[in-house]
Amino acid sequence: MICLEKNVLLTIEYDGTCFHGWQRQEGLRTVQGQLEDALSKVCRFDVTIDGTGRTDRGVHALGQRATFSGDFGIPVERLPRAVNNILAGGRSSGGDKIGDLRIVEAQQVPMDFHARFSCRGKTYRYVISTGEVDIFRRNYSYHIWRPLDILKMRQASAYITGTHDFACFQAAGGTPRLTTVRTVYDLNIKEQGTDIIIDVTGDGFLYNMVRIIVGTLVDVGHGKISPEALADIIESGDRTKAGHTAPAEGLYLYKVYFDDEFKKLGGL
Amino acid sequence: MICLEKNVLLTIEYDGTCFHGWQRQEGLRTVQGQLEDALSKVCRFDVTIDGTGRTDRGVHALGQRATFSGDFGIPVERLPRAVNNILAGGRSSGGDKIGDLRIVEAQQVPMDFHARFSCRGKTYRYVISTGEVDIFRRNYSYHIWRPLDILKMRQASAYITGTHDFACFQAAGGTPRLTTVRTVYDLNIKEQGTDIIIDVTGDGFLYNMVRIIVGTLVDVGHGKISPEALADIIESGDRTKAGHTAPAEGLYLYKVYFDDEFKKLGGL
Repeated sequence: MICLEKNVLLTIEYDGTCFHGWQRQEGLRTVQGQLEDALSKVCRFDVTIDGTGRTDRGVHALGQRATFSGDFGIPVERLPRAVNNILAGGRSSGGDKIGDLRIVEAQQVPMDFHARFSCRGKTYRYVISTGEVDIFRRNYSYHIWRPLDILKMRQASAYITGTHDFACFQAAGGTPRLTTVRTVYDLNIKEQGTDIIIDVTGDGFLYNMVRIIVGTLVDVGHGKISPEALADIIESGDRTKAGHTAPAEGLYLYKVYFDDEFKKLGGL
Repeated sequence: MICLEKNVLLTIEYDGTCFHGWQRQEGLRTVQGQLEDALSKVCRFDVTIDGTGRTDRGVHALGQRATFSGDFGIPVERLPRAVNNILAGGRSSGGDKIGDLRIVEAQQVPMDFHARFSCRGKTYRYVISTGEVDIFRRNYSYHIWRPLDILKMRQASAYITGTHDFACFQAAGGTPRLTTVRTVYDLNIKEQGTDIIIDVTGDGFLYNMVRIIVGTLVDVGHGKISPEALADIIESGDRTKAGHTAPAEGLYLYKVYFDDEFKKLGGL
């Protein structure tokens, strides 16, 4: 008998608006739940996927990764189309029906590869919109009416980059961690039209860490916190000294790095 | 006693995704229902609004207009902010909370002005996306993967422009009309990046007329219907000869014209 067991790495994107986050929960529509159900139909066995990490309710992803393994007949490269059709609820006449969750790529990987254990870092993107109110983007960006001082926000970001104890940027309620020390490799703030795009790359993130960093940067941009104060805020380890938590709507899990890609970032 | 009765013209935009269309219906979330409830709170009497026309479930609006009148104290120019705050569910810390329905402008008009009776024409916009699948635009455009022959679509549009009996572009189930003769003043097809924008301006539209026109143009763009066949299709008055009905997601009520604006269009 020939064993057909394969280990598959998926690249996934989703619009988090109508999901109760990543993690499977009984009776709730979650990314993991929807994806496992559709994969199970296509692969004809009970699929369990392992993501590189959870995302909260309302948070989006452009480059989430997950692995699953099993003995199934369908060629790996055909998985995305088959699964996406189920996720989108079939095709419509003339055009494509598109769901809010989609497999972008599926690739076969060695059996010992595991999305979560092999993950060495991630980039989160946060989108702030500062132009006219656009109701069509209300679930996809954080709209801020009052002008932001981007220079000050960039000055503040310099204090955040590097290896620090980031307890001040951790919300209560997350999974307990052994340490709150993390490394932020890069914190880039760029303007794109009337949008401000904040990309944060690190080896790992505490609960709500990116949203609290962004909220703190917005408070700096509004003059409520001085850029220099960031040194004390981080040193204190006190969540109440940092800024507000930016809403989930503007947050995207942008890219996940495995060993090889991570070395290029300057890690390890 | 001084009478404070005012007649107010509202310009409204909404994301139709989570509405069961315009018209108030018991137990369903509709644009008219949400707007009347919020206006009633602000004006402190039971407001009934009169829109220029209904939009279906999933259809958006950038420039819907509606009138209402009554005896209320708040200055007209303060209405949008007060109502929009209620519609958005209040402000969030640091930024603006944005709802899926918003008053863009409120202006006092003569007591005999009535949005529906004074409406002389409308422009509907339809957005087709032809690039890479973008899950974040699934509710805001009609994604078409197979290449479209825009030249042929433009040739076909020439047959639609003008005054015709448009029975072939009318779906069953709408409000009965005295006549199915309408005038399409302009049908413009333009490319914007990988999007195709179709603007249809007319004195009035039958049930699903714009969506059937767009579906027919898409079928022409795919070579299923020849541009020249449009003459016969319109002549026949037969819905089954026209193309498919394009989905609601790509449709926007773009602009509404009253007497003065309409004259500029060449009408009357």
